Amino acid sequence: MKQTFLIISLFLLLLSCDNKTSNNILVSNNTELQEAIEKAKPGNEIVLKNGVWKDVEIKFIGEGTKQNPIKLSAETASKVFIEGVSSLEISGNYLEVSGLFFRNGHSPKTNVIAFRTSKSKVANHSKVTNCVILDYNNLERDQDNLWVQFYGKHNTLENCYIAGKTNGGPTVRVDLKGNQSIRNYHKIINNHFGPRPRKGGARGETIQLGSSFTSMSPSNTLIANNLFEECNGEVEIISSKTNFNIIKNNVFYRSEGSVVTRHGNYVKVDGNYFIGDGVNDQYGGIRIINTGHWVTNNLFYKIKGKNFRSPIAIMNGIPKSPLNRYNQVTDVVVAYNTFVDSDSPFQFGVGQNLAQKDVLPKSEIRSARPLRTEVVNNVIYNSKGDANPIIEHDKADGVTFKSNVIDNNGVAFSKRVGLISKELTLTDIGSNIAVPIAGFDDVEPYNGFDFETITEDLIGKSRSKSNQIGALLNSENIKLNLLDKTKYGADWYSNEVEEKEGEIHFVNKADEFVTKLQQAKSGDFISLNDGTYLVPKSLAINKSITIQSKGKAEIIFNGEKDTPLFSLQPYGKLTLRNIKLKGNNNNYAFSTLKKNMSNHFGLEVIDSEISHFNYALRVYKQAFSEEIIFKNSSILNCENGLELSEETNDRGDYNTEYLTIDSCTFNSVKQNVVDYYRGGYDESTIGGNLLVTNSTFTNCGAKEKNKMLLNHRGIVNVNINNNTFKNNKVQFVSILWGAKNNVESSNTLMNSGKIKTEENLKQKLMY
Amino acid sequence: MKQTFLIISLFLLLLSCDNKTSNNILVSNNTELQEAIEKAKPGNEIVLKNGVWKDVEIKFIGEGTKQNPIKLSAETASKVFIEGVSSLEISGNYLEVSGLFFRNGHSPKTNVIAFRTSKSKVANHSKVTNCVILDYNNLERDQDNLWVQFYGKHNTLENCYIAGKTNGGPTVRVDLKGNQSIRNYHKIINNHFGPRPRKGGARGETIQLGSSFTSMSPSNTLIANNLFEECNGEVEIISSKTNFNIIKNNVFYRSEGSVVTRHGNYVKVDGNYFIGDGVNDQYGGIRIINTGHWVTNNLFYKIKGKNFRSPIAIMNGIPKSPLNRYNQVTDVVVAYNTFVDSDSPFQFGVGQNLAQKDVLPKSEIRSARPLRTEVVNNVIYNSKGDANPIIEHDKADGVTFKSNVIDNNGVAFSKRVGLISKELTLTDIGSNIAVPIAGFDDVEPYNGFDFETITEDLIGKSRSKSNQIGALLNSENIKLNLLDKTKYGADWYSNEVEEKEGEIHFVNKADEFVTKLQQAKSGDFISLNDGTYLVPKSLAINKSITIQSKGKAEIIFNGEKDTPLFSLQPYGKLTLRNIKLKGNNNNYAFSTLKKNMSNHFGLEVIDSEISHFNYALRVYKQAFSEEIIFKNSSILNCENGLELSEETNDRGDYNTEYLTIDSCTFNSVKQNVVDYYRGGYDESTIGGNLLVTNSTFTNCGAKEKNKMLLNHRGIVNVNINNNTFKNNKVQFVSILWGAKNNVESSNTLMNSGKIKTEENLKQKLMY
Repeated sequence: MKQTFLIISLFLLLLSCDNKTSNNILVSNNTELQEAIEKAKPGNEIVLKNGVWKDVEIKFIGEGTKQNPIKLSAETASKVFIEGVSSLEISGNYLEVSGLFFRNGHSPKTNVIAFRTSKSKVANHSKVTNCVILDYNNLERDQDNLWVQFYGKHNTLENCYIAGKTNGGPTVRVDLKGNQSIRNYHKIINNHFGPRPRKGGARGETIQLGSSFTSMSPSNTLIANNLFEECNGEVEIISSKTNFNIIKNNVFYRSEGSVVTRHGNYVKVDGNYFIGDGVNDQYGGIRIINTGHWVTNNLFYKIKGKNFRSPIAIMNGIPKSPLNRYNQVTDVVVAYNTFVDSDSPFQFGVGQNLAQKDVLPKSEIRSARPLRTEVVNNVIYNSKGDANPIIEHDKADGVTFKSNVIDNNGVAFSKRVGLISKELTLTDIGSNIAVPIAGFDDVEPYNGFDFETITEDLIGKSRSKSNQIGALLNSENIKLNLLDKTKYGADWYSNEVEEKEGEIHFVNKADEFVTKLQQAKSGDFISLNDGTYLVPKSLAINKSITIQSKGKAEIIFNGEKDTPLFSLQPYGKLTLRNIKLKGNNNNYAFSTLKKNMSNHFGLEVIDSEISHFNYALRVYKQAFSEEIIFKNSSILNCENGLELSEETNDRGDYNTEYLTIDSCTFNSVKQNVVDYYRGGYDESTIGGNLLVTNSTFTNCGAKEKNKMLLNHRGIVNVNINNNTFKNNKVQFVSILWGAKNNVESSNTLMNSGKIKTEENLKQKLMY
Repeated sequence: MKQTFLIISLFLLLLSCDNKTSNNILVSNNTELQEAIEKAKPGNEIVLKNGVWKDVEIKFIGEGTKQNPIKLSAETASKVFIEGVSSLEISGNYLEVSGLFFRNGHSPKTNVIAFRTSKSKVANHSKVTNCVILDYNNLERDQDNLWVQFYGKHNTLENCYIAGKTNGGPTVRVDLKGNQSIRNYHKIINNHFGPRPRKGGARGETIQLGSSFTSMSPSNTLIANNLFEECNGEVEIISSKTNFNIIKNNVFYRSEGSVVTRHGNYVKVDGNYFIGDGVNDQYGGIRIINTGHWVTNNLFYKIKGKNFRSPIAIMNGIPKSPLNRYNQVTDVVVAYNTFVDSDSPFQFGVGQNLAQKDVLPKSEIRSARPLRTEVVNNVIYNSKGDANPIIEHDKADGVTFKSNVIDNNGVAFSKRVGLISKELTLTDIGSNIAVPIAGFDDVEPYNGFDFETITEDLIGKSRSKSNQIGALLNSENIKLNLLDKTKYGADWYSNEVEEKEGEIHFVNKADEFVTKLQQAKSGDFISLNDGTYLVPKSLAINKSITIQSKGKAEIIFNGEKDTPLFSLQPYGKLTLRNIKLKGNNNNYAFSTLKKNMSNHFGLEVIDSEISHFNYALRVYKQAFSEEIIFKNSSILNCENGLELSEETNDRGDYNTEYLTIDSCTFNSVKQNVVDYYRGGYDESTIGGNLLVTNSTFTNCGAKEKNKMLLNHRGIVNVNINNNTFKNNKVQFVSILWGAKNNVESSNTLMNSGKIKTEENLKQKLMY
């Protein structure tokens, strides 16, 4: 009997193995792939042969079953590269894609991966797993697209690594247009959203759930257990614009933005970790708009975001708001959260802008304060103390504020009923995080309507036996390992790279300089020995490179009119140190490409001198740098200075996040001395940043048509400090935007016009 | 054995009877009632002693259980009268109220019955059943209130008869402010909503589900199996303003209005009967705004409503609409409905008002056409043919229109893909209704997304075995009895009254006239013999009464300055026939009360003459009449004519639904000859109505300050036809509102100014 059973078992095992083998269809080109897809039956696995698949537009259409999905996978996960102009579209039921690596290219469509193949044919119960999308950017920043676009219902994006999007458009979007895509219960889980660099303007979300046009639809999307690392695209990391979504147990690590319930209602934001560094004030928390959201069990650790990016930003709404603007906050619950060393965690009436009522239409004035909102049972711990744990941008008279505890380490703060002072101690919970988890047992939690549904704490421990406030129940041996990247993303890909030092290439002559610059690896240094280097043609900068000298090297550029000495190209990050650059008055020192700036550039000029150029720096439309720095440098005898003003479509875009000019000398720069523009009113985005300090401007701006020396219209953060302006033939050195963060101090102006502050700048509305 | 069983059974029966008795607490006054409520335990029944309970504010607070609710009931249903200034509030769990009759009074609160006793204390799982609320009106029309207001969750209003509301505010409202009242699953079932007279302006809905301010909240309210009879309050019978409501199997019988998905989304309107008379064009169907509604299995029978009241009115939205205005229609399904002798059942882009863009702000322009909407599988039958079964107020390019069938009985109509011509026959289905239920089996139904969820037809027959379009599947012996009123409302109350003829009281002298008028019953006639009747004081008209003569009776009124001969009071409906009225130049012929016009008045003047009054008719603010008719009568030598212009708060109100002047003579009426005003722009309400025909106006309007003879600013329907205007010292006889239904024809004007048409009138916005 036993033997018979064994034999039958073996037979079945063989049969199943055999089945498995026969179900695998290895394909090595697009024709074979399409043929295999057309013939695929439930249980089939179409396997893409290892190698580069270039310019493929895959339409994976099929009808799998729950038990027997149809799979599309890599022969070896990590060795199938989707490159060039390629895309993946999926429709049908029970389809699974895994192991693909999208890189070195971009999509010909409005998305890289779409869960549909046509308007009417969507995917359901389908999955993309264990894939990577890296730097798969459109050539132009304004050419918006999505990398993963959900349609249909019950689809999953899991265990993927996705990073490096620079062009406009959210990285991932759930689309709800059409009844076939509502109540979708999509899952976005266990992914690693790697760095998304600052985009410079709006439309840089990492995940967007719907849009204002579908903000009335039930979505029920789950975003859980993902790592968001340096997702800095814009002010919103996750922009929830539909109803009944759940955002749970994610780690937001050093990400410059917030989770925002932008439109839609009844979203649950539960048990997430917001981890900052205690310094960067761009790392945000949760910004709340609309009705019925529950924000519970979240931990905010060293989050220094202010105002729109504050840990909990509860906004004012616009009375009877237009569909795409700000509805009033009502019926929101913020309970059982813990804040450690996070500044002014409770901000009410964020976005209140009654002062702007003369420059904005009535339908832009956020005067409707939160209603029927409960902020209760939260714990705050401040090692250094915070004078303003609560900020009321408008009266919080519609908020029930009860049973919250603070340890402010002795620092005075304005008292408020519902905020109880206690002495707490921190407990190490792993991941370099220490949190108060005890010391407030005697505080009776506020018991709001339906609070019995808050059944667990941040780490999933049952609250049934405890009556304790804060995100974490008192417990022994909590050992989190939040940043263990093996828990997120594709199992075959890591974004952790070994730091290595760049090589130094010493050069003596111009042709040697040109050759070495070409050959150098990203991160290398080109060290010019003293002397003069005559460069006849533009040099491409398309990697990280430092060009330096001991102090007496001079590069003379006699390239053609309107060509740059250094052509700043995608990925090109140039540091210039101790170098003199001299032009022929017609050409440029630095400029970006006129088009196809598919990735960011960077520029740092230190201890250098730039003279006799038509432009010192010319940045064309759609080019973007995270930082441009001039330090201890001179710009002399140039027709134009630093030109970054081509983003004139007034959609809120700009060309650099930071433009820093420190301890520099500008002399005889005739126009566009500093020209840095952002157009389009957008209340929520915070950029760019202009810092002009300790510098001297002499005999500049004579040809400037608008009679202004420093042009920075629309730039949100401007600081002009401790400079000397002498004999500049202008009317204004600067006109500052008072309502935003535009300030000046300790400047000396001689025969150079004035610095003026306008409180409210008239701006073109983006919406 | 058998015997033992019997004995035990009997014992148990006795026990249970005994229990029941001991659980009943009979109370006979408010103190006993409150005491009983305070002591009530699960299973208790508090019984109100028969009689009149005057000025009681009942707060029924208790904690029943599912098995053992706490009941509040009448000793004899129908014999417990709640009168005077009284109200009922309920909070707690599992509470049931039954058998009460609210009449002869009004509520001191903002509602008559509320499912809460304070802002935080609401009722859940509670019920009001077998009750009547009749004419329980506030004293003033502008003093809005609700008769039944839902809060909390899982509450029921069932088998009630509710009728006669004249003041502002929906009869029943479900309130969703606060998380304790969302996802409420309230039930409004088996009620009889009896006549609600025209209110004259907005705020006269029979049921309102939420408000625009809570239009994002899930409500899940069920309105099923109710009879709505002559619910004429305003243009909306049911105004659904929240999400996921179900409106099912109701009968809308001769009700001047529509079911409107005004705000909120994903409402199911399934299997309802809309029954008109083939004449009245105020009886409407379903008006659709917003997203995701399913309108299925409904029958429209002899519905003649136009435009906003058309059987299926799919509106245009305002792009990015403000919260309280019109969102675009998207993702709507209109399928499997049947239309019999109902005019232009499919109207698309209703409310399109691009022509008004110069007089309205941009945020009022409805230019957003329906998107992703399916109108399919419907059946139309027109006995007389309809030239325009489809009306496109704006292009229906976002609508999928397929598999619809029409029998137009040979009358030509503009062809359209998706509308298939067939010859059908009618089948009697009871209730004086005949419907096509066969003859289109060969039409392949359009199979939209999720259509498999439409599992039943109008009468609940399974669609699984049929593939047939239209509301009703082919079937034998359908015998509906929709108007059997025993199926709806309280089992002890019927609104069917036996018609009886009024008595005629003959009078010869003034004092006899006064006495008989007082004593007469509603519906009676006072017949004046020839002669002169000198009346020194105002006569109250507070019932239906006809005052008539053979032709030579004259009433001379020498009452005080500014007092009326006939004081038109609540319920007062006066018909004057063949009578001369003469005043002392300082007093009035007719006027309403200055306040407390808690119910409508009416006035009909036929073959009569009115002269030498300060006012022929003066209607004060908040007074309302459904009809005012002057026919074959003269108004001579009066300082003022017909004055109905005190509704100046510009909330869309007016004083009479119809003002008809036919074959009359106006001579030497110095001002306010006809002054009938409505203020406040409201695109959806259709009123009032001014008809001036076959009449002569001579030497009138000399003192009219605005130099206009017929003042009717804001009145929607105006028809001035076949009149003669002679020697009236005015600039304009009338200024007509062209965009609305204001017309004139065949008028003769001599030395009387002009009639002018203004296409778009500037109006004050109500919202």
